[in-house]
Amino acid sequence: MSGRILVINPNSSETVTGDIDRALDGFRGAGGPAIDCITLAEGPPGIETERHVNEVVAPLCHAVRREQASAVVIACFSDPGLYAAREVTGSPVFGIAQCGMLAALARGERFGIIAILDASIPRHCRYIASLGLSERMAGERALGLGVTALANEEVVGARMTAAGERLRDEDGADVIVLGCAGMARYRRQLEANLGCAVIDPTQAAVGMALAALGADR
Amino acid sequence: MSGRILVINPNSSETVTGDIDRALDGFRGAGGPAIDCITLAEGPPGIETERHVNEVVAPLCHAVRREQASAVVIACFSDPGLYAAREVTGSPVFGIAQCGMLAALARGERFGIIAILDASIPRHCRYIASLGLSERMAGERALGLGVTALANEEVVGARMTAAGERLRDEDGADVIVLGCAGMARYRRQLEANLGCAVIDPTQAAVGMALAALGADR
Amino acid sequence: MSGRILVINPNSSETVTGDIDRALDGFRGAGGPAIDCITLAEGPPGIETERHVNEVVAPLCHAVRREQASAVVIACFSDPGLYAAREVTGSPVFGIAQCGMLAALARGERFGIIAILDASIPRHCRYIASLGLSERMAGERALGLGVTALANEEVVGARMTAAGERLRDEDGADVIVLGCAGMARYRRQLEANLGCAVIDPTQAAVGMALAALGADR
Amino acid sequence: MSGRILVINPNSSETVTGDIDRALDGFRGAGGPAIDCITLAEGPPGIETERHVNEVVAPLCHAVRREQASAVVIACFSDPGLYAAREVTGSPVFGIAQCGMLAALARGERFGIIAILDASIPRHCRYIASLGLSERMAGERALGLGVTALANEEVVGARMTAAGERLRDEDGADVIVLGCAGMARYRRQLEANLGCAVIDPTQAAVGMALAALGADR
Amino acid sequence: MSGRILVINPNSSETVTGDIDRALDGFRGAGGPAIDCITLAEGPPGIETERHVNEVVAPLCHAVRREQASAVVIACFSDPGLYAAREVTGSPVFGIAQCGMLAALARGERFGIIAILDASIPRHCRYIASLGLSERMAGERALGLGVTALANEEVVGARMTAAGERLRDEDGADVIVLGCAGMARYRRQLEANLGCAVIDPTQAAVGMALAALGADR
Amino acid sequence: MSGRILVINPNSSETVTGDIDRALDGFRGAGGPAIDCITLAEGPPGIETERHVNEVVAPLCHAVRREQASAVVIACFSDPGLYAAREVTGSPVFGIAQCGMLAALARGERFGIIAILDASIPRHCRYIASLGLSERMAGERALGLGVTALANEEVVGARMTAAGERLRDEDGADVIVLGCAGMARYRRQLEANLGCAVIDPTQAAVGMALAALGADR
Repeated sequence: MSGRILVINPNSSETVTGDIDRALDGFRGAGGPAIDCITLAEGPPGIETERHVNEVVAPLCHAVRREQASAVVIACFSDPGLYAAREVTGSPVFGIAQCGMLAALARGERFGIIAILDASIPRHCRYIASLGLSERMAGERALGLGVTALANEEVVGARMTAAGERLRDEDGADVIVLGCAGMARYRRQLEANLGCAVIDPTQAAVGMALAALGADR
Repeated sequence: MSGRILVINPNSSETVTGDIDRALDGFRGAGGPAIDCITLAEGPPGIETERHVNEVVAPLCHAVRREQASAVVIACFSDPGLYAAREVTGSPVFGIAQCGMLAALARGERFGIIAILDASIPRHCRYIASLGLSERMAGERALGLGVTALANEEVVGARMTAAGERLRDEDGADVIVLGCAGMARYRRQLEANLGCAVIDPTQAAVGMALAALGADR
Repeated sequence: MSGRILVINPNSSETVTGDIDRALDGFRGAGGPAIDCITLAEGPPGIETERHVNEVVAPLCHAVRREQASAVVIACFSDPGLYAAREVTGSPVFGIAQCGMLAALARGERFGIIAILDASIPRHCRYIASLGLSERMAGERALGLGVTALANEEVVGARMTAAGERLRDEDGADVIVLGCAGMARYRRQLEANLGCAVIDPTQAAVGMALAALGADR
Repeated sequence: MSGRILVINPNSSETVTGDIDRALDGFRGAGGPAIDCITLAEGPPGIETERHVNEVVAPLCHAVRREQASAVVIACFSDPGLYAAREVTGSPVFGIAQCGMLAALARGERFGIIAILDASIPRHCRYIASLGLSERMAGERALGLGVTALANEEVVGARMTAAGERLRDEDGADVIVLGCAGMARYRRQLEANLGCAVIDPTQAAVGMALAALGADR
Repeated sequence: MSGRILVINPNSSETVTGDIDRALDGFRGAGGPAIDCITLAEGPPGIETERHVNEVVAPLCHAVRREQASAVVIACFSDPGLYAAREVTGSPVFGIAQCGMLAALARGERFGIIAILDASIPRHCRYIASLGLSERMAGERALGLGVTALANEEVVGARMTAAGERLRDEDGADVIVLGCAGMARYRRQLEANLGCAVIDPTQAAVGMALAALGADR
Repeated sequence: MSGRILVINPNSSETVTGDIDRALDGFRGAGGPAIDCITLAEGPPGIETERHVNEVVAPLCHAVRREQASAVVIACFSDPGLYAAREVTGSPVFGIAQCGMLAALARGERFGIIAILDASIPRHCRYIASLGLSERMAGERALGLGVTALANEEVVGARMTAAGERLRDEDGADVIVLGCAGMARYRRQLEANLGCAVIDPTQAAVGMALAALGADR
């Protein structure tokens, strides 16, 4: 399998891009496709509003056209510009929200999502409805942490476990999706704490991209 | 990424297992997990009826317990024994029908399935309804070929294109799922003929298994 | 109306078969069809897992072919082998889970199910989704009793009432389905305790079988 | 089993009541409940409009209160007054449209309805949606016959077969519901012509009423 | 824009008609259509049961035929006779329940309904299901007040706020529909108390009637 | 009723804004709110792609903040920036696609949409699914006209009738929505040609805005 998978972080945080990049090392086998992660310099520091989601579309499409890739992954849980990017490239384009939820459905009956911000939940719910997946969503819970606290791994890990427990025990989720890019480092511990599968959406999307490229060898 | 992905062909045809095996070569990178394909000797030559689906469950569960695997893929488009296998192993178990359809949803709006036999379609439809995915299914069309004709690649390829065209033009599918294991060799040509993505379900399942194992390194 | 309705208990417990048999006496009028209840000797003592559900299919189909019947009722709330049995007989085949839930929908807005075991609930839910009936299901609650306690009618009756009250008051059910064969003796008392209709699924299935045979006289 | 099942024909046609009555002979076994069919003198000759459906409710409720019955069946495929009748009696009340469709779901995947009049189809569709059953409805087709032609059994039978064939072949129905009371005499021939189950809704409702009374003996 | 919008209060309470009338003053601009509110003398004092809903249909249809109107609004939250009235006039006929809920969907994600009586909720729910809107309904809560208390504006206002808070906080509603005609005077205060949009269904229906007439000038 | 309803045409065509403006004259009564239509100078000449939809969001939000309005209507059938605009104003914001479809549901059972471009249909379908309205959509048909032909009213009118006939006769629509702003002048003729209600979405949205402001007097 050859080719190049381009993973675009549509916010301007290089730290997040670095976290995403490390989480994909497991997919980088000898002879496999290159997996390159880039940062969208024009993006906001974080994608937190409807308006942010819309505003990154133009630079994101520009990046998709500029970069040569066999497959593109948009690494933000709002899948900004997914359909617009498909208008500007013939290569497959994957959104990590879609891929994370779809991969979750292969592991359990009903998925729960751990979001960063409460304000993103209605936006996510509309999107999930547009995908016809609402009846297999158990719920979504936000961490409820400010920017400073988000830098504290211990605090974040504890909040993730608490959110996951509520999704599992109150909402009936039996598989959890991390509702954010760049959180893969919490995944294994969370699986151990919750006793159920946890999906990192960027890993899910890259797995799907690999399968899409799988017969090209 | 280390570990071993076990792909079980629940029918007794070694030829089918060989076809499956070759379609997974693209996932076998240096340093990645082993991907081993086995044949269920106790299975029927092909899984064609409700009763076949049920009868392979016991030997399939026996194989899952006997073999040591980090992840298991059941390579039959009826996903026989998926939930039963999850009762006997703590490793993730994937069914190719589920994975194929879920992967298709990351590529298009509505998927069409190319089945081998007409008689399988009601069974597939009940299963798809149980997954809550019916509203994103455009349709399913069978090849309508006897055993002899199925051995003729040219005939099969032509029928696949014809079925795909009907799914695309009459049913509104914009992504096609091969509704059978061991058909991956037709995938690229079919994509070229139809002008839309074609999903091999076993490749889709192995891509998901890789992502599930992705953080274990 | 003539003919023979065959009711198959797919577990090997003769006690359960006897309970089923007694619950059908009301349908045995002079001139009506025979209603015969048999035990599947090859079945497990109780059907409690996915694997049990699968394993009874082969002997059940064998029994359906061996016995001559105008209509067949599979008397286990997982409807094991329902679709497989239809492959081996031209007579109508009814599953008591389907019939119990469908009959409940003729009596109320949303049904609640009283299950024996918690572990059966996800299996039931997938099945109900496959039937397109999820939106009219209020919930399912298990008795949470061990084998010994299940033999104590007083304890079982009290737990059924407690489960029914939760289904009615917390989940919004206005009709209750007994999620097990052989529990009809609790039905009238439960109706009195809960103030709503309670459906015995085997009685429901036999009522449907009678209607199916109704014009044969 | 004792008691009395009251079957109310809400139109004023004694001929229809007679047809209904004959179709229920198979349920009249020695020792079973009485099954009495009455005509609603205040009803219109046929129930053909929204307004008819509404206007029979008051006299129908009056009849339910006046007659003593263990169970009531409303024998019109629009189920007029079903919920109103439940307000005036503590006995179970069944509507034949509901029962016919629910019984059909125990026999096949998707039901088709043969209606008398085209104008009834939107009313039926709204009702079926209110029951959450739309996704298992294949379609509805009307006979398209005037009053005179409806008296000609040969013509009606031929039109029923033609409608059933379209429901089966174009709409995908694998079980047919007669969308009218008093048509049971066509049932067996139609089953033979179509090769699939045909449900008479009044027989279906009486079968459910018998099951509801089943434990009262 | 010329013409006449006829608003029919199908209960016999002139007080309610007066409340409805006042709530529509905002729509009465110079040059716009007349908006006339009438009381159905034959109606019950309040529409509280299934039977009431049915019994007003005949006099309501009579009124629709008698009065000349460019558009008709049926001002009761059960939309009695909506489909029957459409059979007797060529002018558009609007039901306030439908219009109130549809207008709510233009303002938020999921609507909550404040009902007068608990007993109306199942009837409303069946109706909402028939409209295919159940998945966007958050819930319905009743005021739980007797006739005397309903005359006390302070008590009613407090109960409305309490019901609205439960719909918002427990059920997830982000827009509220007043589930009754003649309650518009509570609307603005309730919006202020709850911090979300509140829809008066009669105002919503008249807004839709105006748009339907909009191009007639 | 006082206040100001701001109608924003998010494309840069003053001609379209003029067409919209004229279609709203019927709502401009003495004493009613001002209804002002503005053109988004930064928009593309027409909104035809996913990218266009995204790119107008920033200037549209800027306009919403700059202009003082009691209610805002976004007059493009893709509802661009609807949720983003709600983030930047406390006044109600209406999207004409939502309002047009919701108003249609108050007039008929299933709506059909007449689109300008085939390429917009998948985008509309995802949006309709996100609103939970798919099951009441009969279909969408495009005019299939180039820019020059779109300026020819006779050609456009004939194509609209042809599309409406297919929606009515092949797809089962009983109410039609004009899937574009600025087409109201075709509405009455189309209603006459098709014999069913036709909804201009901008008129529908302004009717809803009037109702929202209705109690402010």
